[in-house]
Amino acid sequence: MRNIKLTIEYDGTNYEGWQVQRHRRGERPTIQQALEQAIPRVVQHAVQVIGSGRTDSGVHALGQVASFFTESAIPARNLMHAINSYLQRDIAVVAAEDAPADFHARYSAKSKTYRYTILNRDARSPLLRDRAWHLRTRLEVDRMLAAAAWLVGEHDFHAFQSKGAENEGSTVRTITRLDVLRRGDLIEISVSANGFLYNMVRAIAGTLVQAGMGKLQPEDVRRILDSKDRSQAGPTAPTKGLCLVEVVY
Amino acid sequence: MRNIKLTIEYDGTNYEGWQVQRHRRGERPTIQQALEQAIPRVVQHAVQVIGSGRTDSGVHALGQVASFFTESAIPARNLMHAINSYLQRDIAVVAAEDAPADFHARYSAKSKTYRYTILNRDARSPLLRDRAWHLRTRLEVDRMLAAAAWLVGEHDFHAFQSKGAENEGSTVRTITRLDVLRRGDLIEISVSANGFLYNMVRAIAGTLVQAGMGKLQPEDVRRILDSKDRSQAGPTAPTKGLCLVEVVY
Repeated sequence: MRNIKLTIEYDGTNYEGWQVQRHRRGERPTIQQALEQAIPRVVQHAVQVIGSGRTDSGVHALGQVASFFTESAIPARNLMHAINSYLQRDIAVVAAEDAPADFHARYSAKSKTYRYTILNRDARSPLLRDRAWHLRTRLEVDRMLAAAAWLVGEHDFHAFQSKGAENEGSTVRTITRLDVLRRGDLIEISVSANGFLYNMVRAIAGTLVQAGMGKLQPEDVRRILDSKDRSQAGPTAPTKGLCLVEVVY
Repeated sequence: MRNIKLTIEYDGTNYEGWQVQRHRRGERPTIQQALEQAIPRVVQHAVQVIGSGRTDSGVHALGQVASFFTESAIPARNLMHAINSYLQRDIAVVAAEDAPADFHARYSAKSKTYRYTILNRDARSPLLRDRAWHLRTRLEVDRMLAAAAWLVGEHDFHAFQSKGAENEGSTVRTITRLDVLRRGDLIEISVSANGFLYNMVRAIAGTLVQAGMGKLQPEDVRRILDSKDRSQAGPTAPTKGLCLVEVVY
């Protein structure tokens, strides 16, 4: 039996997210469903696709990782092209390789990197209409960076987790990197951690934006962490600005 | 009477180009039509929108420029937001200003810059599916740059003009800049000139790609220019990789 590791890119705009949420079945397909329909047409048997984690509806990915077991003898690169021929244009396998039998896309993950994109100018952008959060108020990147510094390291991120999360375990995570960069009219927030709570990146983005607008002082972030109270942090930023860039194993 | 200069961004995927071509009316709207329908709802009279030049179906713009005359007293920035409220999400005015009475979006243009984007990797890209030409064969950027060098300066670009062009005048143009840059899996061709012939950028992109694949020697470009024969140059690259970045006046 082979364990195939897939790296997947998708435009999440027209999907109900990675996996159907309990009690929230939408009419639109999920990325996982699309893969579980395409792969059997290639390997000639049903498969269960295990992802590194869920992404919400509208969230994009450059490097989501998933795996499945197969008896097929088709070489990995050929599997990639064959699977892609059965996927819509807004989802694609961008790399495929044989992984050890004990590789698990979720439990073997050591670190993930997300990028959150903000369009910070007066006019909306047609080319980024589904890829960035449009904010007209000028954001001060220096203030966002100062606020971000309080989040780096090991902390209890309970205040940055949305209610309704299924996770009943520890809310302690370690952020290894949190950058805020202005590129022209864009502000890109890049965040790497050993794991993320439900909606954690979007809560961080919403909080950094409040700091960038002057509605929060950078040092308020320390108080927000200590409060363990979601209502103290900034709003949850919209999904369309979020992209899962990389999962490291 | 005011002469309003608009800078326009659009995703050309769902449009029949900037302007309906003679004898080729499509079912889809054009960018010009969309503007000529939206602007009157703001200024309360019919307008004729003059663009800096045509773009074909599928070609995008970050900085197309157009102008129209109006009696309206609405300040330019408010005009921008009001017009945008009547445009679809894939087209937007990103700047509006009062221009001199003799400003003409087409005849006053001194220079234009286009960018052509190539995705050069094995797997297709969902996020760039309508924004880049996907080529799997590894392109040698050094060869593309060497070929590009022959095109910089004042030349007769007859060999880089598609048949069916309405232009019966001179085919001499001056390319002031022609860069080829690899950024990860992307290759970006940026070209600035005092004017472009019909499909000229796409013919240049197709020719540089042939050089990058080794199908042409860089110095063959000189022979192609001298031939004034379109069939000597490379194929016309697909529209989806092309974006009008800027028009300078």
